[in-house]
Amino acid sequence: MGCIFGIDIGGTEIKIGKFKGRELVLKTSIKTDTSAGGRYVLPDLFRKIDELSKGEKIAGIGVGIPGPVFKGIVNGAQNLGWGRVEAEALIRERYPEARVRVLNDANAAAIGEMAAGSASKFKNFVFVTLGTGIGGGVVIDGEVLEGENGAGGEIGHMQIANDGKRLCNCGRHDCFERYASATGLVITAKELSEGRKTRLHQTGFSAKSIFDLAKEGDEVALEAVDKMVEALAVTLANIGAVLNPEAFIIGGGVSKVGTFLLDKLSKKFREVCFFALKETEFALASLGNDAGIYGAAHVAGK
Amino acid sequence: MGCIFGIDIGGTEIKIGKFKGRELVLKTSIKTDTSAGGRYVLPDLFRKIDELSKGEKIAGIGVGIPGPVFKGIVNGAQNLGWGRVEAEALIRERYPEARVRVLNDANAAAIGEMAAGSASKFKNFVFVTLGTGIGGGVVIDGEVLEGENGAGGEIGHMQIANDGKRLCNCGRHDCFERYASATGLVITAKELSEGRKTRLHQTGFSAKSIFDLAKEGDEVALEAVDKMVEALAVTLANIGAVLNPEAFIIGGGVSKVGTFLLDKLSKKFREVCFFALKETEFALASLGNDAGIYGAAHVAGK
Repeated sequence: MGCIFGIDIGGTEIKIGKFKGRELVLKTSIKTDTSAGGRYVLPDLFRKIDELSKGEKIAGIGVGIPGPVFKGIVNGAQNLGWGRVEAEALIRERYPEARVRVLNDANAAAIGEMAAGSASKFKNFVFVTLGTGIGGGVVIDGEVLEGENGAGGEIGHMQIANDGKRLCNCGRHDCFERYASATGLVITAKELSEGRKTRLHQTGFSAKSIFDLAKEGDEVALEAVDKMVEALAVTLANIGAVLNPEAFIIGGGVSKVGTFLLDKLSKKFREVCFFALKETEFALASLGNDAGIYGAAHVAGK
Repeated sequence: MGCIFGIDIGGTEIKIGKFKGRELVLKTSIKTDTSAGGRYVLPDLFRKIDELSKGEKIAGIGVGIPGPVFKGIVNGAQNLGWGRVEAEALIRERYPEARVRVLNDANAAAIGEMAAGSASKFKNFVFVTLGTGIGGGVVIDGEVLEGENGAGGEIGHMQIANDGKRLCNCGRHDCFERYASATGLVITAKELSEGRKTRLHQTGFSAKSIFDLAKEGDEVALEAVDKMVEALAVTLANIGAVLNPEAFIIGGGVSKVGTFLLDKLSKKFREVCFFALKETEFALASLGNDAGIYGAAHVAGK
């Protein structure tokens, strides 16, 4: 039956999973070379796939990309240095026998959580990845919503302030991800700590140290976390007012904080949401950083 | 084949359309009696239906309701004084031979515009009604998205400010509809006019007078319209970042202003939106106040 590759291309590394059927049999990663407009990303990936398959039949290749993807065409991926790239066609050209699928990375992770993780009981949910940025995957009736130009679920670029203070990678200001991602949390904590006593001056400002100190009751760290949670709660409530999903599934690096974050978030959400949304469920993603490779493999193996 | 009734229940009047097949053959309305928790709304409607059908076979009855509806059950409709009402079951009990469908009024209008209006070329769009409040209908692959508790498309209750200045009918503050509806426009114009010269002091503050004076160049009126347009543009761009639809269809009383509003809105949208959304189309609804009865009849006649 051949093997299936589930691949998750990020701005710093490319995660590669080799699957037999639904089973992940091997997992590895290579560095992402974003030099020269990201032109080495696919050749590097191909070399690694060849090495990992060693002439074995490749039944499918699924690839998640950090940017909008519509019908296999990437419509800009700043973290890779890519503009418009016909990624699916390029991969298919190199592996004509394989079933090739290219999709947005958060959409891939959403499908991964539905196929093998904590969204398995939902068919209408929004997957939210909290990492350096914020990604989203909107699943309706079990299908991921790509949208007209592949920007379905690009919730990190909802505008949630209007003071023009925080510039986003997308070129605009005040995007959600500048407030509620790991990056946003650090910016907020730095702002709040000016002239105030906090152990963050000793530990340094990382999302992890902010959460650790917040748990220990450090006032500034706790205030920064609460501001992040409020931005998250209000924005998810706004998404809720559009979609009214069964659940929000919270993933990405920041979600490793676990129930400390989830409890605060679901409580705040219920405070700020439209009344008909109060029963919306919250769950932590369970596949961690592997959600993307599971989802990419799933769509390539369908 | 019998007749089909398409009904649109609003807070001040109930619009009733009688259809033969897809043709609207009679249109009328009755006052909405919201006294006593809205308990007379359905009995009044039944009396009118009986009068209009005069023993003729009723093949279908579709009803739009101003509140969240999930599988025919109304989950609160403040403007009618209703809490949870099993409207579809109550109507079916009275008209057991008819195909009965109860849905949210903005969802009904969205379907109406798709079936017989200006959304006929779209299958993925968001219908936005700008009136006293703001309603929305999300259509994906030709189907309206009800959401888990009927709150899909309740975009009027997205929170777009955080200063707690404008109280909404829903009990929360800072909802979208307190800024970008006719009501919101009037509040903004009153705020802006304090101590300033504007002909609004003579004409009075209605959405119509504000738009009329804005077209004539009245500074305060124009500023109020521009603030409304900005709130609309940013919020639709945020909805766009979730759904990435083909188009936004703008309806409701305020949309009668026509291209003056639409041109400003689509221009501002392109300025503020995430890059992948720039090609999103904008169109004015074409059925006006009749969209709801067309849509309600359509779902009851399917």
